[in-house]
Amino acid sequence: MHDSSFHQAAIRSTEIEADLAVHPDRYRVLTGDRPTGALHLGHYFGTVANRVRLQDLGVQVLLVVADYQVIYDRDDPGDLRASVLDLLADQLAAGIDPARTPVFVHSAVPALNQLLLPFLSLVSVAELERNPTVKDEVAGYAGRAVSGLMLTYPVHQAADILFCGANLVPVGRDQLPHLEVTRDVARRFGQRYAPLFVTPDALLSDTPLLLGLDGHKMSKSRGNTIRLGDDQDTTARAIKRAVTDSRRDITYEPAERPGVATLLQLAGLCLDRDPADLAEGLDGSAALKALTTEAVNERFRALRARRRELAADPGYLLRVLDDGNRHANALAEATLDRVRAAMGTVYR
Amino acid sequence: MHDSSFHQAAIRSTEIEADLAVHPDRYRVLTGDRPTGALHLGHYFGTVANRVRLQDLGVQVLLVVADYQVIYDRDDPGDLRASVLDLLADQLAAGIDPARTPVFVHSAVPALNQLLLPFLSLVSVAELERNPTVKDEVAGYAGRAVSGLMLTYPVHQAADILFCGANLVPVGRDQLPHLEVTRDVARRFGQRYAPLFVTPDALLSDTPLLLGLDGHKMSKSRGNTIRLGDDQDTTARAIKRAVTDSRRDITYEPAERPGVATLLQLAGLCLDRDPADLAEGLDGSAALKALTTEAVNERFRALRARRRELAADPGYLLRVLDDGNRHANALAEATLDRVRAAMGTVYR
Repeated sequence: MHDSSFHQAAIRSTEIEADLAVHPDRYRVLTGDRPTGALHLGHYFGTVANRVRLQDLGVQVLLVVADYQVIYDRDDPGDLRASVLDLLADQLAAGIDPARTPVFVHSAVPALNQLLLPFLSLVSVAELERNPTVKDEVAGYAGRAVSGLMLTYPVHQAADILFCGANLVPVGRDQLPHLEVTRDVARRFGQRYAPLFVTPDALLSDTPLLLGLDGHKMSKSRGNTIRLGDDQDTTARAIKRAVTDSRRDITYEPAERPGVATLLQLAGLCLDRDPADLAEGLDGSAALKALTTEAVNERFRALRARRRELAADPGYLLRVLDDGNRHANALAEATLDRVRAAMGTVYR
Repeated sequence: MHDSSFHQAAIRSTEIEADLAVHPDRYRVLTGDRPTGALHLGHYFGTVANRVRLQDLGVQVLLVVADYQVIYDRDDPGDLRASVLDLLADQLAAGIDPARTPVFVHSAVPALNQLLLPFLSLVSVAELERNPTVKDEVAGYAGRAVSGLMLTYPVHQAADILFCGANLVPVGRDQLPHLEVTRDVARRFGQRYAPLFVTPDALLSDTPLLLGLDGHKMSKSRGNTIRLGDDQDTTARAIKRAVTDSRRDITYEPAERPGVATLLQLAGLCLDRDPADLAEGLDGSAALKALTTEAVNERFRALRARRRELAADPGYLLRVLDDGNRHANALAEATLDRVRAAMGTVYR
């Protein structure tokens, strides 16, 4: 992503952000996740809280659970059903209201997946291989073969976004090139066949990256996360193990003191307070850890109670998915019919 | 394709060919075409006549009309509906019986197309780029971008072959690497999830390549073909324009006299005679051309009459497709359900 393209996208995103509260009905958002395990606090503050905010502003949000995409970079998908239900319970507990925000799974919406075929004709292999996100992912698998599914992932995302007419997609800066593939597909389909698709805009996130409790990038495999559904004791133990330093005074200096800064940032997010303000008057790491533990447990008390109820009722979760899948199928079939008409593949 | 792999495939193909007449019920064949225009005599003798032969032996044959794949190498798909109906009329006129051999179009079978997603995870980009057929096609488009659809075409073919449980695929030697992708997908799916798919074999064609009337490769764009549906006068004019030489004696020498040999070969195919035998006693190109014209027009007289009737009844052709699409959808949905169960993407 060139700086100038990023700059343009950032300006547009700021304009849209200002308009969202005024004209929520003008926006339709598609977003979602690969179901690779339960969500952690990084996911919550990075993406989920924003989805709930958009929903509650009155924006139409659709959530995809990208079950097929779990296998683009691994051989064993694990227990997909359990992962999907975990992800759904996390999101509903966080405030996603399925009556307003349909949640659907890729594998249950064939008409959406079919769009991959015409869309693949609109993108060159060279463009897919140039995509920086794909490049990074390729680099992350030194010596491992890149699957056809990973290379074509941005085109499948284009199908996600365009099948439901989404005009806004929340992304981090590093995902802008992915969205650019969708924008190219929408424009090229319009030039070649008919202007069926809007060219979606990016809603750039301004949440600072939340690091893991060891000061490194938060990831399940590093064990440096707190999951949304963790209980109070698990939370306390995880924070107790967090890496800080031996200075008694607590200051918010992310570059020099990443471990301390991470805890201050987490407590700040939970308490809606500025991390630097929180630091004042704190005496030593133990006090900081106690403050952070209390902040996390308070902030997520109600969410965790809801999550326990949801997890105990898989029948309800499955009904939510079934409703979301029906909604997505109706949309996808209508879109596919219009695509068929535009391409001339109507045989009746 | 290594010579040894080709040799193995050729031995296996010969064994199967011998068994086909004895146990036709043991075989299920998937084959088909991209609908890029009306079929010519090269298609007829190269592939279509063999399909009809297999059908009439009692083998279950399924025919796919690969409408989405028309755009893997071109921007403008043309009038797809007309191309599809032309292709269908050609095949029914040639003896394909839709009551025994369902004919379906890709764009009408979403559950088949969805299989592309899990199958793409089983194949690496490097394998797709190494595929010699893709490489040749890439080389043929000097300076043109290769689309994502062209790269992934062999994986979509895997979906065609595996969704209906085909265990036999008629191919030319140059298409063996394509079939190898299908065989890899079937085996890898079995290793990773469950052994749902048989590994299909190649039925290698032994028809010699029929050249165009100018002695070059037969192709619509060179205008060196006779279409299956051409009338007698068009056939006579095309053969009159054929490039031969000025020798009065007629001999079957493909290397030295390609133009003469092509006409002898075509007349031989139409008359079920050996081209070298036909050459004896012929005096000059005019006599050769008269013989060939008569042979083509006699051989295809009944087929052409049927084709005219079929072309005059698009309602019937559309009903044939509709029946074939229903058949394919039922098969594809059953296969997709088994794939969902094997992968664990069942949410109920």
